[in-house]
Amino acid sequence: MTLRPHRIAIAPSGFKESLSAARVAEAIATGVRRVIPDAELDLIPLVDGGEGTAEALALAGGGRLVPVTATGPVGDPVASHFALLGGGTTPGPLTAVVEMAAVAGLALVPPDRRHPGATTTYGVGELIRAALDAGARRILVGCGDSGTSDGGAGALQALGARLTDRHGRELRPGGGSLHELEHIDQSGLDPRLADTELLVACNPYNVLCGKRGVARVFGPQKGATPAEVELLSAGLERLAAVLTRDLLPAFAPRAGAPIDLRTAPGTGASGGLGAGLASVGARLLPRYDVLLDGLDLDARLARADFVITAEGALDHQTVRGKIPAEVARRAQAAGVPVLVLAGTIGPGAQDVRAVGVDAYSAILPAPMTLVEAIGRSGEFLADASERAMRIMALGTRLAPVAPLAA
Amino acid sequence: MTLRPHRIAIAPSGFKESLSAARVAEAIATGVRRVIPDAELDLIPLVDGGEGTAEALALAGGGRLVPVTATGPVGDPVASHFALLGGGTTPGPLTAVVEMAAVAGLALVPPDRRHPGATTTYGVGELIRAALDAGARRILVGCGDSGTSDGGAGALQALGARLTDRHGRELRPGGGSLHELEHIDQSGLDPRLADTELLVACNPYNVLCGKRGVARVFGPQKGATPAEVELLSAGLERLAAVLTRDLLPAFAPRAGAPIDLRTAPGTGASGGLGAGLASVGARLLPRYDVLLDGLDLDARLARADFVITAEGALDHQTVRGKIPAEVARRAQAAGVPVLVLAGTIGPGAQDVRAVGVDAYSAILPAPMTLVEAIGRSGEFLADASERAMRIMALGTRLAPVAPLAA
Repeated sequence: MTLRPHRIAIAPSGFKESLSAARVAEAIATGVRRVIPDAELDLIPLVDGGEGTAEALALAGGGRLVPVTATGPVGDPVASHFALLGGGTTPGPLTAVVEMAAVAGLALVPPDRRHPGATTTYGVGELIRAALDAGARRILVGCGDSGTSDGGAGALQALGARLTDRHGRELRPGGGSLHELEHIDQSGLDPRLADTELLVACNPYNVLCGKRGVARVFGPQKGATPAEVELLSAGLERLAAVLTRDLLPAFAPRAGAPIDLRTAPGTGASGGLGAGLASVGARLLPRYDVLLDGLDLDARLARADFVITAEGALDHQTVRGKIPAEVARRAQAAGVPVLVLAGTIGPGAQDVRAVGVDAYSAILPAPMTLVEAIGRSGEFLADASERAMRIMALGTRLAPVAPLAA
Repeated sequence: MTLRPHRIAIAPSGFKESLSAARVAEAIATGVRRVIPDAELDLIPLVDGGEGTAEALALAGGGRLVPVTATGPVGDPVASHFALLGGGTTPGPLTAVVEMAAVAGLALVPPDRRHPGATTTYGVGELIRAALDAGARRILVGCGDSGTSDGGAGALQALGARLTDRHGRELRPGGGSLHELEHIDQSGLDPRLADTELLVACNPYNVLCGKRGVARVFGPQKGATPAEVELLSAGLERLAAVLTRDLLPAFAPRAGAPIDLRTAPGTGASGGLGAGLASVGARLLPRYDVLLDGLDLDARLARADFVITAEGALDHQTVRGKIPAEVARRAQAAGVPVLVLAGTIGPGAQDVRAVGVDAYSAILPAPMTLVEAIGRSGEFLADASERAMRIMALGTRLAPVAPLAA
C-alpha cells in the first residue's frame, strides 16, 4: 500500500523546569518517527515569554545570549542573561530580549523562601540597563513564570526611580511593602528610556487589580497565604494609584493612549511587572502577537494533516492564553485537527476541547514522584508520542467517528 | 453524517488489589460512551485464575460464593470463600471453584512478612475439603497472584498427607523447609479425592524447577532474597523427587499420562501448587482453555470493529500468558485491531505488539503514589479510555498509516 506521507506540525511549549520547547519538539518527533518513519515533520517550538524565551528567540533570530550577573528574586546575585537579536545586521534599532523569568522567575526562588511579599523584580531593571549599555534601543521584555508580585516596583528602582513611604524612606523590596508607598521620584530614571522602544510580551488575561487581579490569581501558587494575598492586593492597588499620579503623565503618551494600570490587559503580567513598565512608556502587547512574529505559524499549521502541541500541565489555565490553546485556535481556523501531549492533566483540562483541541494524552507510564517525572520527561514524551501515534494509526483503519460525538 | 455505530469488544483483566474485571470493563465503557455514545459495546470481563476468579465465575455461571474461614498464607485464619457453580441444576457433578489467591494470595501477606520460605498453601487444601464437604466432585483450582512458594506442600498436608523429615517429624510450613523432606505418607489423604475431578487452571509458562523454575522467576517479587531463592529452588527440587516417588505412582494415572513434575507446563503455577496437586491426580490445564469455556470469546472478538483490553501492569510478563496477550492473539487471528489500557507501563511492554496489540496507553494523569493510583483507578480508567477514543477518533479523519510502520 502506497500512501502519501503524513504532514505533521509539532508546535509545543517547553516544559517548565525540565525541557525547552525545542527539546520537547524533538522528543515528540522521535516518538512520531517510530510509527510513521516517512512523515513530513515541521518542528515549531514555541515560547510564551517565560522560561527559555530569550534563548529560543536568540536561536531563532541569529542572535546571542549576553551573560549578566544580576539581583535575583530573593536578593542574592544570580547568573542571568539577556539576548541580543540579529547581531546588528538587521535594519532598525538593535533589539534585545529580556526574559523576566531568567532573573526573577519562580524557579529562582528556593521553595522555602516563596514569600511573594518579599521577592523583587530589581534584576529585571538591571537587565534592561545592561541591554541599554549594549546599545539596544528596542527591548522586548518576556513575561511569564515569575516568582514576584511587586508590580514591577523593583524594576523601576533599578532603572533609577525612587519609591518612598510617607517618611521619605525608600521602600523595602517586594510587594509586601507597596501599601506603604507614598511617592515616586522619577528624576533619577535612566534617560536612555526616553529614546528606547520598550515592548512587553504579556498574557492579556492577566490584570493588576480587582477580583481577577494578579495577587489573587497567582499569589497562592507563588507561596502567599490568604492574608498575604490581601496585603499584596492592597499594595498593588496603592502602586497603581501612585504610578498613575507620578509617572504615567510623563511617559504613557509615548505608548499611545493612556491605559488604566489597574485593569488594562497585561498589567498583571509577571506579578504586575506589566503595569510597572507601562508606567514608564512600555507597550503591553499580547504575547503571541510579538513572539510568533516571523514564524509564519498560521500557514505552517494549515499545511499540516494534523498538529501536535504539548504543555507541562494541561488544566483550567490552559485556555487562558497558554500555548496549546493558541495553537489549537489557529489550527481550528484552518480545519486542522490538534492533539496535545501533557506532562500532567489537571482539573479543567477538558475545557481545551472548546478552543479546538481534538484529543489529549498524558505522558506518564507509571506512578512516580514529580521529581522523577520531571527528570525523565524527554523519554516519557517520546514514548507517549509513539503510543498516541499508534492509537491514531489504529483509528485510521476504522470508519470515521461522527463529529458531533468527537 | 450518518455512520453505522462502532462495535467494540471490551475484554479486560481485573486490576490487582484494585478493581475486578467487571469494574474495569464498566469503567472503560463509561469512557468510550463519552466519545461514541451510540457504540455497540460487548463487555467481556476476563479472569486468569487469580484474584477475583471465584467471584467472576460464580457471577457468570449462576453460582454462589460459600464463605469459609481458613488458614492464610502466614498461618493466621482469614475470611475466605470458594464458589459453587450452577446451583446443582446443571448435569454432571457439582462443580466448585477454589481460587488459591483467596486464601494464599500475595495480597494476604502483609508486606513486612513477605518471606516466601515461610508462607503456606495449607488454606488451599482446607478450601478443597470444604468444597468436598459441600458435595462438589469437580473442583476447579484457579492459580495466580499467589504469595507462596511451597510447591503445594501445605495443601497436601491439609488434605491429609504427612510430609516428614529424616527424623520422621512433620515439616514446618513453607517452602523454606522442603529441602529437609524425606518421606510422604499418603495413607491419611482424604479418600473423596479418589472420585473427584480436580482441574487446575494454570499459566502453562510456569514450571516448577530449572532455570526458569518458579522460585527463580517469581521468588524475588514475593520477597525472597537471592539466598532464599536458591534455598527454595533446592527445596522444590527435593519435593518433586519425593512426590514422584511417594505419591505420583498411585494418583497420576487418573490424570492421564504421568507427567514430569519438574518441568511439565503449569507445575510451577502458584509457587508450585500445580505440581503438588498434580501428584494427587489433578490435571494441569492451560488456564484460558478452562476459564474462557462457554464465553464464546473468539466469535465475540471477531464481530468487533476493534477490541479494548486492559491490565494493571503491562510489561515483559504480559506476553507470557497474561490476559491482554491472550485477547490480542485471538483478535489478531480474526484481523481485529486491539488497544490495551494499562495502569502502569513497564520494561518490555512493547513486546505485546508482536502478539497482536496495535496500541496501548497508560491511564495516569499526573505524578502520584501507587496507593493513590490504585485508589482512583476506576476514575482514571474511564478518563483514559475517553482520551484514547478521542485520539482514535482523530485518526479516523486521517489517511491510513502504512501497516508496515504501524
